Amino acid sequence: MTTDAPDHRDRILDTAAEQVRRFGEAKTNVVDIAKAMGLSHSAIYRHFRSKADIFDALAARTMAEEAELAARFAKAEGPAAERLRGLVLALHRSKRAKLGEDPEIHGLYRRIVAERPDLVTDYARRMTGLVRQVLEDGIAGGEFRIRDLDTSAGVVRDAVTVFVHPAHVEQAVVAGLDMEPRLQAVIDALIAAFEATGRHDK
Amino acid sequence: MTTDAPDHRDRILDTAAEQVRRFGEAKTNVVDIAKAMGLSHSAIYRHFRSKADIFDALAARTMAEEAELAARFAKAEGPAAERLRGLVLALHRSKRAKLGEDPEIHGLYRRIVAERPDLVTDYARRMTGLVRQVLEDGIAGGEFRIRDLDTSAGVVRDAVTVFVHPAHVEQAVVAGLDMEPRLQAVIDALIAAFEATGRHDK
Repeated sequence: MTTDAPDHRDRILDTAAEQVRRFGEAKTNVVDIAKAMGLSHSAIYRHFRSKADIFDALAARTMAEEAELAARFAKAEGPAAERLRGLVLALHRSKRAKLGEDPEIHGLYRRIVAERPDLVTDYARRMTGLVRQVLEDGIAGGEFRIRDLDTSAGVVRDAVTVFVHPAHVEQAVVAGLDMEPRLQAVIDALIAAFEATGRHDK
Repeated sequence: MTTDAPDHRDRILDTAAEQVRRFGEAKTNVVDIAKAMGLSHSAIYRHFRSKADIFDALAARTMAEEAELAARFAKAEGPAAERLRGLVLALHRSKRAKLGEDPEIHGLYRRIVAERPDLVTDYARRMTGLVRQVLEDGIAGGEFRIRDLDTSAGVVRDAVTVFVHPAHVEQAVVAGLDMEPRLQAVIDALIAAFEATGRHDK
C-alpha cells in the first residue's frame, strides 16, 4: 500500500459513483472507472479486488457519512431530548434526500443493504452507540430516568427503523407520503417514556 | 356466482397453499390445483382470474387471519397495557412461526407484500384500528392519558413495524436472533409514554 491510499480510494469511489449516476450500476465497470481517472485498471486493483468490492465500499462510505451526521448531535450541547429528535430527523431527511436526488446510487445502496447484513449490523451498532451517548447525557442532566441504557438505546433503534431503513423510506417516497409527522410522534412518545420511566420502576 | 362460492374459494386456496408447500410457487399452476381437487380448470376460473389472483387471495387470507388474531386482544377484558402487549407479541410470534414452519408460503407472502402496497395499506389500517380500540379502552379505564388516539395508534404501528414486517422478521430468524426481548422493551416504552403523556401536555 502506498501512503496516498486513503485519498486514492476516495477518488476511485467518487468516480465510481459518478459513473453509476450517469450510466447505471450494470454498465459501470473497473475499466471505465480507470479510463475516467486516466489510470490503468491495475491501478484500481491495487485498492479494490473487484467492481463488487468498489460498490460495497461506496455503501460503507455512505454509512460512515451518516454516522458523522449523527455524531454531530451526539456531541452537541443542549437538552438531550432535542438532540435525540435532531439526530433521528437528520438521518430520516438524509435518507429521503439521497433517494430523491440520487436514485441510481440509492438503488445500489439498497441492494447492498439487503445483501450485506454485516455492514448493516456494524452501522446499526455505531448509530445505537451515538443514541446511547445522548441518553447518557440526558440521565446526567436529570432529564431522563432510564434504568438500562443499552436497552433504551435499542428501543430508539428499533422504534425508528421504519423511518431510516432505505426500503421503507423508498416506499413512502414512491407513495408520496410525508413520514415526518409520524416520526415526530414516535420521538414524542420515546421522550415521554424516558422522562417517565423512573416513576414506574419503583 | 353460486351460493357455495366462499367455501369453494377457501378450498381452492387450501389446495393452492398445499401445492406451493410441496412443489414451490413457480411449479404450481391452475391446472394442477384443479386436478388435485378433481375439478376442471374452468371451475377454478369461475372464482379466480389467474394463478396470480389465487396467490394474492392467499396472502389476503393470511392477513385476514392475523387481523382475527389481533381482534381477540382488542375485544378481550383486562388492563389495556397487557392487551396491547399481547396483541403485538401474538403478531410477532405468528409471523415467526409461519416463517419457520412454512418457508414456501412465507416466500410467496413476502413477495406479495412487496408487490401489493394496497393490500399492506389495508392490513395496516385494520391493525391500527384494533390498536386504537385497545388505547381507547385504556383511556376509558384511566390507565392511559392520550391526547390524540389516531396519532398514538400510529406510533404503535410504526414503532413495532420492525417486529412484524416479514422482511425484518425473516432477517432476524436467518441471523438466529430472538427479537422478543427487544419487542418487550419497545412495548414497555410505549406503555410508559401512554401512561405519562398527560403529565407533559399541561
